[in-house]
Amino acid sequence: MAAHVLALLSRPSLEAPGDADAPAWVFVDPESPQLTALDLGATRGDGIFESISVNHGRAQALEHHLRRFAKSAAMLELPAPDLDAWRAAILAVIDQLAPGDSEAFVKTVLTRGIEYGDRPTGWAYGALSPSFEAARADGISVVILDRGYRHDVEQTSPWLLAGAKTLSYAVNRAVAREAVRRGADDVVFVSSDGIILEGPTSTVVYRRDGALYSPGTGLGILDGTTQANVFRWAESLGMPTAFELTTPELLRSADAAWLVSSVRLAAPLRALDGAPMPVDAEFTSRMNDWLKALDD
Amino acid sequence: MAAHVLALLSRPSLEAPGDADAPAWVFVDPESPQLTALDLGATRGDGIFESISVNHGRAQALEHHLRRFAKSAAMLELPAPDLDAWRAAILAVIDQLAPGDSEAFVKTVLTRGIEYGDRPTGWAYGALSPSFEAARADGISVVILDRGYRHDVEQTSPWLLAGAKTLSYAVNRAVAREAVRRGADDVVFVSSDGIILEGPTSTVVYRRDGALYSPGTGLGILDGTTQANVFRWAESLGMPTAFELTTPELLRSADAAWLVSSVRLAAPLRALDGAPMPVDAEFTSRMNDWLKALDD
Repeated sequence: MAAHVLALLSRPSLEAPGDADAPAWVFVDPESPQLTALDLGATRGDGIFESISVNHGRAQALEHHLRRFAKSAAMLELPAPDLDAWRAAILAVIDQLAPGDSEAFVKTVLTRGIEYGDRPTGWAYGALSPSFEAARADGISVVILDRGYRHDVEQTSPWLLAGAKTLSYAVNRAVAREAVRRGADDVVFVSSDGIILEGPTSTVVYRRDGALYSPGTGLGILDGTTQANVFRWAESLGMPTAFELTTPELLRSADAAWLVSSVRLAAPLRALDGAPMPVDAEFTSRMNDWLKALDD
Repeated sequence: MAAHVLALLSRPSLEAPGDADAPAWVFVDPESPQLTALDLGATRGDGIFESISVNHGRAQALEHHLRRFAKSAAMLELPAPDLDAWRAAILAVIDQLAPGDSEAFVKTVLTRGIEYGDRPTGWAYGALSPSFEAARADGISVVILDRGYRHDVEQTSPWLLAGAKTLSYAVNRAVAREAVRRGADDVVFVSSDGIILEGPTSTVVYRRDGALYSPGTGLGILDGTTQANVFRWAESLGMPTAFELTTPELLRSADAAWLVSSVRLAAPLRALDGAPMPVDAEFTSRMNDWLKALDD
């Protein structure tokens, strides 16, 4: 089992020039320099990524992640990723990592490449995940922070790239520090006009009167791969699911709420802006067991 | 004269561990990989930068750029840059580049380094500038685009990092593409509540009744190094200068307007959202000549 594995894509996009007979990726040392200081990923955060969970050696929601990767590329007008090459590289990284039954992840990154160059840069990086058992079992304390944008910017101002999973994540890192400063573990963003959006690296899901809800798409937020699976699980139990516009007040009145994401899976909210939230440990445990056992 | 020059900082921050006797920087090949795929600059746009103009072999507004670099670092809670080391590296890059009387620039980048690592990554990159004579002489066509944020987010929501010069520039690149789509050359951002902010890589300056104006700081925009010099020049001519809250209507009614920035210098607006703007070519030329001749 390798501690971590890095594959550089030889042909990260359908348009990238290259020898069709060349291997689609090469394994390289993740601890050695692989990028130049002129790469627009490093100088402008100009690129996209996905983080894919690996459980029992299987990439989860792989096709959903690949679709979202392609959608982010289109929103940034990056060359369309060669999804067959990416899929093969992701599976090869997992094979090389050989995580067995340990939880792991693969992160895919596509940058616009070197400024004025003719091809994007792409890599797939795999490693074992840290343990998130405490967050899953005991829950997380969450604060609501202003994202600054109205809930409709995805429609009015597509150049803001709201809803694309870009490398320009400095704000998502800053809000994590602000959460710690407030004694909390994580963040839920609210729009400037008072609509609950998403976490910096997660989707909001909550339960009310026996149904599961999530804010849904079109609000400048990501189409959650784990949220989609959680809804699939709920529907298999006969629970209704729906998207709805949510306010902080509505979220506070939920009878349970979670931040769900690929690698941490479902983390129940035990506090929201300092006020306790009910945690349904048994329901959460079943949800996470089902997510961990997913075949695709 | 080297085509371009890259110096990696050995001790980019005051806190970075290192041998005090080691050189503060090393020259490396800019076309060879220098960064790992785990650098948070490349994976999260988690870092800061400055672009410093070099005219007649002299770094312009160097101390202002260094102060702003340190301010951006503080806003991102990065380790404080060792400004003496950065200043020396910038001057060494210029010396190595030997641009003579060609216009050149040095870009400094400080990232949070490798995730879970103990030191930031820093480099200074120098190259000759492309020619901006057409933009300076003929002017640029500019469109006004929504930045999504209210003009007061710097005060209400500092975690949005508005006013820091971060590597998370994907939106600034996206608005440049949107400008091209609209047949324009550049962009002026407007806040969601209708206040003129800045360009994606420039500061707005305009003239009305013989005085120069700029939106000023505190609006989630950068403290412009070139705007400061333009005001210094205007004051040397006896022209009044002032900061004021500006609307699109007020900007349209100016008798001349510019986007000013370190490398392109002052580019007059010849159109705003498709409507012609008056260009004062003689005044602009004197402004740019003065900027190019600056000693510091």
